[in-house]
Amino acid sequence: MKLFSESQVALQASRLHIASVSHAGIAEILSLAQALEQSYSIPFVKMDQGSPGLPPNHIGIQEEIRVLESGVVSLYPPSEGIPELKEAGSRFLKAFLNVDIDAEDCVPTVGSVEGSFIASALCTQRTPSKNKILFIDPGFPIQKAQLAILGIGWKSFDIYSYRGEKLRKKLEEMLASEDVGALLYANPSNPAWLCLSDQELRLIAEVTEAHDVVVIEDLAYLGMDSRERYGHPFQEPYIPSISRYTDKYILLLSSSKIFSYAGQRMAMLCVGKQLFRTVYPALANRYHNSGLFGATLTGCFVELLTSGCSVSSQHAFSAMLEASCEGKLDFSADMHVYMRRAERMKSLFLENGFHIVYSKDGNRAIGDGFFFTVGYGNYSSEELVLELLYYGLSTIPLGTTGAQLPGVRCCVSQMEEAAMVLLEERLKIFHKDHSPL
Amino acid sequence: MKLFSESQVALQASRLHIASVSHAGIAEILSLAQALEQSYSIPFVKMDQGSPGLPPNHIGIQEEIRVLESGVVSLYPPSEGIPELKEAGSRFLKAFLNVDIDAEDCVPTVGSVEGSFIASALCTQRTPSKNKILFIDPGFPIQKAQLAILGIGWKSFDIYSYRGEKLRKKLEEMLASEDVGALLYANPSNPAWLCLSDQELRLIAEVTEAHDVVVIEDLAYLGMDSRERYGHPFQEPYIPSISRYTDKYILLLSSSKIFSYAGQRMAMLCVGKQLFRTVYPALANRYHNSGLFGATLTGCFVELLTSGCSVSSQHAFSAMLEASCEGKLDFSADMHVYMRRAERMKSLFLENGFHIVYSKDGNRAIGDGFFFTVGYGNYSSEELVLELLYYGLSTIPLGTTGAQLPGVRCCVSQMEEAAMVLLEERLKIFHKDHSPL
Repeated sequence: MKLFSESQVALQASRLHIASVSHAGIAEILSLAQALEQSYSIPFVKMDQGSPGLPPNHIGIQEEIRVLESGVVSLYPPSEGIPELKEAGSRFLKAFLNVDIDAEDCVPTVGSVEGSFIASALCTQRTPSKNKILFIDPGFPIQKAQLAILGIGWKSFDIYSYRGEKLRKKLEEMLASEDVGALLYANPSNPAWLCLSDQELRLIAEVTEAHDVVVIEDLAYLGMDSRERYGHPFQEPYIPSISRYTDKYILLLSSSKIFSYAGQRMAMLCVGKQLFRTVYPALANRYHNSGLFGATLTGCFVELLTSGCSVSSQHAFSAMLEASCEGKLDFSADMHVYMRRAERMKSLFLENGFHIVYSKDGNRAIGDGFFFTVGYGNYSSEELVLELLYYGLSTIPLGTTGAQLPGVRCCVSQMEEAAMVLLEERLKIFHKDHSPL
Repeated sequence: MKLFSESQVALQASRLHIASVSHAGIAEILSLAQALEQSYSIPFVKMDQGSPGLPPNHIGIQEEIRVLESGVVSLYPPSEGIPELKEAGSRFLKAFLNVDIDAEDCVPTVGSVEGSFIASALCTQRTPSKNKILFIDPGFPIQKAQLAILGIGWKSFDIYSYRGEKLRKKLEEMLASEDVGALLYANPSNPAWLCLSDQELRLIAEVTEAHDVVVIEDLAYLGMDSRERYGHPFQEPYIPSISRYTDKYILLLSSSKIFSYAGQRMAMLCVGKQLFRTVYPALANRYHNSGLFGATLTGCFVELLTSGCSVSSQHAFSAMLEASCEGKLDFSADMHVYMRRAERMKSLFLENGFHIVYSKDGNRAIGDGFFFTVGYGNYSSEELVLELLYYGLSTIPLGTTGAQLPGVRCCVSQMEEAAMVLLEERLKIFHKDHSPL
C-alpha cells in the first residue's frame, strides 16, 4: 500500500509551485520530499540529492576556524584566489593526476556550479561562431539548466552505445558543424557512474583539438572509482584525466564530495597553461580588456559574479589539498563507505524486481560509487520517480539527465543504517504492489 | 619629486596585462599598486578598494566557529537560504527601515555582487522588451561591467544636476522609451556619497511604478550617512529606503561594510512581496518553471550560479543581524571611525590645492563617510589617477563611475594613522610639483 496518496503528493507539489512532478529538478524533488515528510510525519528514504553523508573533513574545519580567529576575513579576497590555495591546487594535481598545472592557472570558485557556469560562458564567448556546449550524457542536469541564464545552446548524446573506439566517430559527427565551443562531462559520471578510460580520454583529446573545442572535465567524484586504488600521493595509479592528453582543458575540482565540504561552496577551476594565456579578440571586445582567457576568467567572471570566494573556506580547501599531498588525508579511502552502501542498495533493488539501467562500464561491470541507476519493468523515468514517491522513496528521473534509457538515479550518500532498513521494507511493499507492466 | 617613474609604472602595468592604466578597473589599480609596492619596496597609500578597515564583527566570527564545529557544513545549503537568516533579515529590515518584508522574500547571495547580477538579470529577462538597466550615476563600475557577461544593455545619468523635484523630469525622460526593466542606485552612493532624501525616494517610486520598472536599491553603506543618528532598533529615525514607497523593489543588503565581513562574501536580496509572487511568462518560457519571480530567483539563479551560499557565513550574518535588532551591536556607530577619517583626509586634500568634486548633497553639504571625491585643477579623471600613482597614492578614476565631473574617488577604509601621515607628506610634495593646469 502507498505511504502517500496521489492527492497528497499533488497537493504538496502545488503548494511548492512545482509545475510538473515528472519534470521536476533535483531541488524540487528534494523540497517535495521534505514537504511530504513534514506534513504527514513520515520520514522519506532520501536518495535524491547528492549531498555528502559524512562529516566535513576535520582538517578543513580546523583551518577555517584558525583563519576566522585571525581577523583577516574583513578584507575582500583577491579575485584570482589566495596564493596558498593556488599553490596547493597545483601540487594536488601533480600528486594525484601526475599533471603539471601552474598555481596561477588554478582559480577558486564558489563551488563547481560557479565553475561550470564560468567555464561554459567563457568557452562559448571566446569565438562567437562556436557558441554551443556538447554534453556527454547521462549528465548532471544543473550544468545544462544553468546555460539558460545566458541563453547558451547545447547538444548532447548518450555515451552508453559509444564506448571505446566507437566514441571517436560519434564525437566527429557531433562536432562536424563546428559550432561547439566546449565538450563537458564528469568522470566518474553523474548519474550513471561511467568512468572514461585512458584510451577514451586520449581519443577525446585528439578529436576536440582538431575542432578547437575546450574540454571541461568535471572531477566532482575524483578518485571515487573504487575498482582502482587511487589516492596515494605521487604514486601510480594516477587518476585518469584529459589534462594528460591535451592543453585545451578546464578541470573542475570540488571540495564538496571528496572532503564532504558541500556547505561551504568551495571549488577550483584548473586551466591548461596555453589556453590560460591565449588572447581571444572576442573577449577583448566584450570585456574591454586584454582578451586573455585567464585574465578574463579571474578579472571579469570571478570578480563580476561573486568577487571571489570565502576567505576562510579558501584556506580550508588549501589545507585539505596539502594534507592529501602529504599523505595525511586519504580522501579516496574515505569514500569507500559509499561503495559499500551502493553494493548493498543495488542488491536490495535487484531482489525486488528492479534492474540496473547502466550496468556496464565499457567492457567491465559498472563500479560501486556515489550514484547508480535503476529501472522497473517498462516504467518511464517520469512514471517511476512519481511512483517511488508514493512509497516514500525519493530519486531523480533519468529523463532529466539526458539518458536514453528509462529509470531513476539513486544516490547513496544519505543512506545510513536506519534508511537502509526502511528502503528494504518499502521496496518489498513496492514490489508486492506492482508487477512489471 | 615622483616616487615612481613613468617607466616603472608602465613596466608593471604591462607585466599585469593592463591595457590602459587610465581605463583600469578597481581590481587592476589595486594589483598595479601592489606590484609597484613589492617591486620597489615603497608602501602605497591605498585609497582605491573599498575593503573594510576594521576587524570582522566578533559576533559573526563566534557564530561561524560554532557552526563549523557542529559538523553541519558537509551538507548543501538550501538555495532559498537557511531559515534563521531569512527570519533575521526580515526582522532587521523592520527594526532599521521600518518596512515589512516576509522572511521568504529575503534570499542570501554570495555578496551583493552576486545579488546585483541576479537582480539585473531577472529584471531584464522578466519582460523581453524591457531589457535595459538605468543607473543613477556616479555609481559602482562593477554593476555595469557585470552586465557584459549577459550582454545586457544599460543607460545612465549623473544625478548631480537633478536633485529634488528636478529628478522627476529626468527620470521620465530616461524611462520614456519603455525599454528599461530596472533602475539601480546605491544610497548612500559610491563614489560621491550622495544620499537620496525621502522626498526623492517617493518620487522615484511614483515614476518607476508608472513605467513598470523595478527599483534595485543597493544598501551596501546602510546607515552610514553620519549626519543622522541611525542604528537604534525599532526607533526613529529610520534609514531611508525605496521599500517604504513601492512594492516593486529589490534591496541589496550586504555584510561586507556594516559588519566588516567582506572576505566571507555574504549578502541578501530582499524583494517586495507582490513582485516576489508575480508570474512572468517570459521567465516560465526561459526556465521551464512556474515563471514566479521569487521561485525563479532562488530555484534558477541562486541554485544555478552558486548553489547557495556558505552555510557557516549564513549563520554568522544571521547572528549579526539579530544582535543588531536586540541592540547588542550598533553597526551604525561602529562606522563613525570612517567619518572621522574622511573629515581629516578631506582637509589634507583641500590644504594642498585639491577640491571636493561632489561637494553638495542636494541642499546640504556632502556628508563624511566611506568615500569622497577630489579633483585637481583641470586634470581629467584619467590623468589624475595616473599622476597620483607616481606619488604612491592609489585612487579610482571618476570617469569609470559615470561621473560627468572629472576627479578621483578616495576610500577612507585603509587609512590608519601611518597611512594618514604618508598621505599628508605626499600631498605636499604633489602640490609643490604641480601648479593647477
